[in-house]
Amino acid sequence: MKRIQILDTTLRDGAQSEGIAYSVQDKLKIAKILDGFCIDIIEAGFPASNPKDEELFEQLKSVKLKHAKLAAFSSTVHSGEDPENSAAMKKLLAAETPVVVIFGKASSEQVREVLKINEEENLRMIKDTVSYLKGKGKEIIFDAEHFYSGALSDKEYTYKVLDCASEAGADTLCLCDTTGAVLPSDAERLTREAVQRYKRVAVHFHDDIGCAAANSLLSAEAGAAQIQGTFLGIGERCGNADLSVIIPSLKFKLGYEFDCDMRFLKKTANAISEISNTRIRNNKPYIGKSAFYHKAGMHIDAVKKYPPSFEHIDPALVGNERKFVLSEISGRNTLLERVRQLVPDADKDSEELLRAVAVLKEKELFGYHYEAAEASFSLLLRKALYKYEPHFNILLHKTTDDFPSANGELTSCSVVQIEVGGKTEMGSSLGNGPVNALDNALNRALSVFYPEVKEMKLLDFKVRVIDATTTTAAKVRVLMESTDGNDVWTTVGVSFDIIEACLQALQDSYEYKLLNSCKNT
Amino acid sequence: MKRIQILDTTLRDGAQSEGIAYSVQDKLKIAKILDGFCIDIIEAGFPASNPKDEELFEQLKSVKLKHAKLAAFSSTVHSGEDPENSAAMKKLLAAETPVVVIFGKASSEQVREVLKINEEENLRMIKDTVSYLKGKGKEIIFDAEHFYSGALSDKEYTYKVLDCASEAGADTLCLCDTTGAVLPSDAERLTREAVQRYKRVAVHFHDDIGCAAANSLLSAEAGAAQIQGTFLGIGERCGNADLSVIIPSLKFKLGYEFDCDMRFLKKTANAISEISNTRIRNNKPYIGKSAFYHKAGMHIDAVKKYPPSFEHIDPALVGNERKFVLSEISGRNTLLERVRQLVPDADKDSEELLRAVAVLKEKELFGYHYEAAEASFSLLLRKALYKYEPHFNILLHKTTDDFPSANGELTSCSVVQIEVGGKTEMGSSLGNGPVNALDNALNRALSVFYPEVKEMKLLDFKVRVIDATTTTAAKVRVLMESTDGNDVWTTVGVSFDIIEACLQALQDSYEYKLLNSCKNT
Repeated sequence: MKRIQILDTTLRDGAQSEGIAYSVQDKLKIAKILDGFCIDIIEAGFPASNPKDEELFEQLKSVKLKHAKLAAFSSTVHSGEDPENSAAMKKLLAAETPVVVIFGKASSEQVREVLKINEEENLRMIKDTVSYLKGKGKEIIFDAEHFYSGALSDKEYTYKVLDCASEAGADTLCLCDTTGAVLPSDAERLTREAVQRYKRVAVHFHDDIGCAAANSLLSAEAGAAQIQGTFLGIGERCGNADLSVIIPSLKFKLGYEFDCDMRFLKKTANAISEISNTRIRNNKPYIGKSAFYHKAGMHIDAVKKYPPSFEHIDPALVGNERKFVLSEISGRNTLLERVRQLVPDADKDSEELLRAVAVLKEKELFGYHYEAAEASFSLLLRKALYKYEPHFNILLHKTTDDFPSANGELTSCSVVQIEVGGKTEMGSSLGNGPVNALDNALNRALSVFYPEVKEMKLLDFKVRVIDATTTTAAKVRVLMESTDGNDVWTTVGVSFDIIEACLQALQDSYEYKLLNSCKNT
Repeated sequence: MKRIQILDTTLRDGAQSEGIAYSVQDKLKIAKILDGFCIDIIEAGFPASNPKDEELFEQLKSVKLKHAKLAAFSSTVHSGEDPENSAAMKKLLAAETPVVVIFGKASSEQVREVLKINEEENLRMIKDTVSYLKGKGKEIIFDAEHFYSGALSDKEYTYKVLDCASEAGADTLCLCDTTGAVLPSDAERLTREAVQRYKRVAVHFHDDIGCAAANSLLSAEAGAAQIQGTFLGIGERCGNADLSVIIPSLKFKLGYEFDCDMRFLKKTANAISEISNTRIRNNKPYIGKSAFYHKAGMHIDAVKKYPPSFEHIDPALVGNERKFVLSEISGRNTLLERVRQLVPDADKDSEELLRAVAVLKEKELFGYHYEAAEASFSLLLRKALYKYEPHFNILLHKTTDDFPSANGELTSCSVVQIEVGGKTEMGSSLGNGPVNALDNALNRALSVFYPEVKEMKLLDFKVRVIDATTTTAAKVRVLMESTDGNDVWTTVGVSFDIIEACLQALQDSYEYKLLNSCKNT
């Protein structure tokens, strides 16, 4: 069985991407998602350079991962510095990860021009750092910065650096294309050479000339034992090698085995994209919305006759689906499993399934997106199958946002009227902003009937414009994450009106809570 | 001098992309832009399949191109059909292009499963079509559909197809990766083999596993004489090989000579993107907004000392520019350069710099994030340096969101009062949601003083909770993207109140527009 190790650095190298600003909570969520997808090593942060990462590693100590090993990242000690007295080493060890990734320069030019130290001292720093950490029992990956450009300009020194790290005890030598511009032919040749020389080689590519995925695949064929990258290719400049593209190619094109279920690829990518507040471009290989989209009539005919004519893989294998420009073929099989949880004897031709397909299609057409909103999806399905009675109805809501209000400040105020079993109740509240006012007002009215909603708390919400062509009148989609202290669930709302979209997501969130608390009692 | 020919098929294969709908005028404009960038061959359309393309070729007859040759595209004749009686051939010839591109299947599997004819008839169709068109004096490129997958499964037949096209008079044999999934190692090997066998080989890759750029470069090294692709990679499914990435790599990494001035690369790409109504993703190699963006403090220091440490090329060579993160952590040096644009004699210890650092730090602590909001940053800097007088003040704003309102529907309504040079003005508006109502109301009040704001349009906005621990009372950050038809700029707002945060971002957006329209007049 062919195996290759995957190291994900979304949380470390990915965090250097323009527009990415992860909170500690975001990072914890992403770490769990990566673990759920059976990533082998999660490079979670650089504690010596980022105080938030120190907190992250502290919190990760109480998180039980089922598959992944954690790695912390650091540079070597500085020039003239002893590892025993290095603040960076202290912080690195305090992270208590089984794996550490140490980077050092593998190009004589970079040592001279950037570090401005002599080449021997660079070797000393690498040697001392690696052997010190080996003495602490760590598994060590040595990231050889500028390996490819170094090997192309001064191969002798580059190999001296690798020899030095290897002899000092590094378990894996990672060949880094730091500026992201090595040609595929050079990448293949140099990786192959390093594989022949060292017992365990990893590769780390950036995408500055658009070759990071190809270079990773060529390196795998050349014998690399580990591929580094980030989910979605998030990363500085043009991004890192994109694991959401490379992993399925390693499996389906090169025959490597992975423990993860590749049918969750798209879902995993979507979840990371939501937390990162980035968009997955429509034409992203494997997982993009248009990756299996056919427009030309001739192509549609051919795909219907024989899918391999214009599809290199069955889209269902990576959790994606085929789309035709006009036709309406939706993924019934996926839905059938869910429908059966509520209607056990449903089959492919059941009226229940047809109804669920129709409702889902209509909602998606409107802009709802259930992949990241499981709670709303389960409510939708119950409604479509007539298996759901709402716990409350909203009769009216009114929200004002006022500056200056009577007290001279900005004030938000909300009033909501609900109906439960024929009885009505009003709730009203001021709030820190209209969403908070609305949530408070709704919570007050509901708690008269359902005291358990008082435990509920909103954890996060995100808003994005769905169709960015029609200014502020465009539809927005709100994703909301709630908790009652035990469970965490996510709901969605879509409207031209941002307050209305929030209210929909809130309403689903309360319904989901009430559905589950009724089941439990 | 190393030369390689470029064929651009943005207008033909690119038109099969989801969301692309070119008018004849759009196509004419793009053809002229491609010609201006010295593309060698422009594959402008498929007259037999698209009546709009017949009109395009008609109009192109009166357009004088300075560099490019035009090509028209067609399939071979059908099974049993004679070229003399083929409607497709008539339309192809009516286009009167010096070059024709003829596609035929080069995979026995595809011939059987899709064409459902015998393999000999497929060869006959290719031979008759090519020799007929040769007799008409055309330069012929034969697109061998499914070449790579065909050569991997039934090489004998695939070469029979190529032999047949070559013997019938095709000038160039184009190896097509129709499903976009050939591995780089296979692409390199098979291209090299074909180059040894035939006098002139072209390659045409799709990006379904993210390897189209790499495969094109490997093929160039293997001896291909022509590279086919589309500008920006526009194309069906995951897109075609992206010429905006491949051309600069051919020049700067492989040493090919081109007649175009590569400093116009970004401008050329932007112009095509505008006409195509697509966005260039920020991390696109060479031409993306973030392609030379540096965020980590260590990287910024290194790039300042020695640009090749984290830049594979001088961004100016492709018309792009270096950017540093606008963040407190990136330190004073970055900020100093910006301060000097307003206060030329400022230095490291100037009071101006200290003030800018302090203001930025305070804002970032509050939750502002200027990395992706350059317009707000430039306003902030001017304010911190006392180089800015606001064009208007907001005296009051009131927004209501009401369901059911008097008409039974959900209604948003906003009132804003502003002050400009001692005069006050009110604007009010209903809207599709409160943000739209607020924008409309503000625009109305402002346009009394500044009619140019009527041109403005919001393109996109994003909202996220900054600190996700305190429920809906948490602070939110809004990023807003605006345009006036020429420029596009981004602003930021932060508040506990989502409406207030939007209003801040709107206010900055209007200020930025007014600042620049005053400068220009």
